[in-house]
Amino acid sequence: MLDLAIIGAGPAGLTAGMYATRGGLKNVVMYEKAMPGGQITLSSEIENYPGQTEVVTGMDMMAKWPEQCMKFGLKQEMAEVSRVSKLGDKFIVEVNGEKLEAKAVIVCTGSNPRRSGVKGEDEFFGRGVSTCATCDGFFYKGKEVVVLGGGDTALEEAHYLAKICTKVFLVHRRDTFRASPVMVEKVKKTENIELVLNSQVKEIYGDAMGVTGVLVEDKDGKERDIKVPGIFVFVGMNANNEILKTSDGEFICEVNNQGQAIVDLNMKTSLPGLFVAGDLRTDAARQVVCAAGDGATAALSAMSYIDSLGE
Amino acid sequence: MLDLAIIGAGPAGLTAGMYATRGGLKNVVMYEKAMPGGQITLSSEIENYPGQTEVVTGMDMMAKWPEQCMKFGLKQEMAEVSRVSKLGDKFIVEVNGEKLEAKAVIVCTGSNPRRSGVKGEDEFFGRGVSTCATCDGFFYKGKEVVVLGGGDTALEEAHYLAKICTKVFLVHRRDTFRASPVMVEKVKKTENIELVLNSQVKEIYGDAMGVTGVLVEDKDGKERDIKVPGIFVFVGMNANNEILKTSDGEFICEVNNQGQAIVDLNMKTSLPGLFVAGDLRTDAARQVVCAAGDGATAALSAMSYIDSLGE
Repeated sequence: MLDLAIIGAGPAGLTAGMYATRGGLKNVVMYEKAMPGGQITLSSEIENYPGQTEVVTGMDMMAKWPEQCMKFGLKQEMAEVSRVSKLGDKFIVEVNGEKLEAKAVIVCTGSNPRRSGVKGEDEFFGRGVSTCATCDGFFYKGKEVVVLGGGDTALEEAHYLAKICTKVFLVHRRDTFRASPVMVEKVKKTENIELVLNSQVKEIYGDAMGVTGVLVEDKDGKERDIKVPGIFVFVGMNANNEILKTSDGEFICEVNNQGQAIVDLNMKTSLPGLFVAGDLRTDAARQVVCAAGDGATAALSAMSYIDSLGE
Repeated sequence: MLDLAIIGAGPAGLTAGMYATRGGLKNVVMYEKAMPGGQITLSSEIENYPGQTEVVTGMDMMAKWPEQCMKFGLKQEMAEVSRVSKLGDKFIVEVNGEKLEAKAVIVCTGSNPRRSGVKGEDEFFGRGVSTCATCDGFFYKGKEVVVLGGGDTALEEAHYLAKICTKVFLVHRRDTFRASPVMVEKVKKTENIELVLNSQVKEIYGDAMGVTGVLVEDKDGKERDIKVPGIFVFVGMNANNEILKTSDGEFICEVNNQGQAIVDLNMKTSLPGLFVAGDLRTDAARQVVCAAGDGATAALSAMSYIDSLGE
């Protein structure tokens, strides 16, 4: 039986694995279907992870983590966990059709921003196309940017960017917003946000260095070429929570209406022995340092929980 | 008026300052009475801060943080804040007898483990004397250590250390424990924990490399020389919460029975606009990466709060 199964090898999973094994847990396996490092490896520039003083790519930053996090005995398996369930005091972790037992489980599968599907979005992702104003807004200080979306997140992020950028073009396909009236009012009152309504982004274009502009078309077919070095796409998030569902589609722990796991300050979910760390939890700040902190916390909580089980 | 006052310049305060200024807040001041870096600068070895791959001293690790965290406009003042209060929507921050106004405040003054006052404790602090098993336990893997204390923390940490160390001597001045009966039972059942009861530590001794042993005396005056390279002292924590008190000694936000601020996942306290990050909050894991994550979270929350105030 595993002492602890960790699912996902982004900043949260890797840190949880380091803390659990360094703390003396013997049989700890971290499952990841892809390469370790997580979503941050798609970012081209990181300058706000404390202690990482040079500006580096997400890929370069995370390249150093696995060795450090695994030197205390953490095992890694490149495999996709399909389901987690609890039977009495034991967790059953289903991996590649096999059923493994574990005393405790930490799920760190994160969440993924949805892509809009616009031409050029994938090509320039991380080179002018971003899904996180907190992460990348500062790189556009004193410049103009486009924000795509009409929900609360899009408007909040547009407002955040307006404090850093000289101008924000908010492109939305309707002339009404799904966002809360308070937020809409605030955005309308912000001088350097221009609302580009009833409009769709047709193409994101650029050169070898990255994005240089965004082609927008309104409902009458009129085109507008907005020359900006960056576009922020906020068309929703997908919580990677399939693992938290039974075969009937019921969640094994409490989640909020966005499908994020509800946790306390110790990363405990409503199911004893199940912990969720990083972007899959409620109120996640979507920052590497926060996910890593969550991972450490979850590992310490999991160890206390395992202790409480007795022998 | 300040946009944001940050009190304390450990990992939480520095990270909060970086996130707030990088996010576009203009007038952000971080107050610290000593050098930036926090309690961790007393540690001689750090190997579990993710991304910091070499084993370094706490001092060396934190030396790099201020430049990175302050390059976005964070101002630092070497001054002690004596009090924080709220008047209407404004906070009043008292510094060196002066009263400053701020829209929001993040308190990151941490907590300090109490010292036992034993001879040699200060001399060897960070070189064999530790107050954190999660941080330093692994450095004694396969070795024997002493734990001093009889409360819940002492027993929990002894139990944690027993998984890593070959033997743990638990020295306690009485033959009964303040810890919970469940925890006492668990420690008694752990084979490699030896209870050294009715005993006090008389001296921690060592050489230029660090601790080499602990002299213990029982209530009958009988001495015992325990040759170990490490001693963990758990005789209580002091939450540095003076700043959260009014002149009448009342707390300005809700605290738990250990004087730690009660916060939610967004680091919000019960007083709107007041945030607490790092070791001064409830359920803090006392780890650099967790405090830093808290700081980032608190800054983002403070920015939302300031936004909600309107112009």
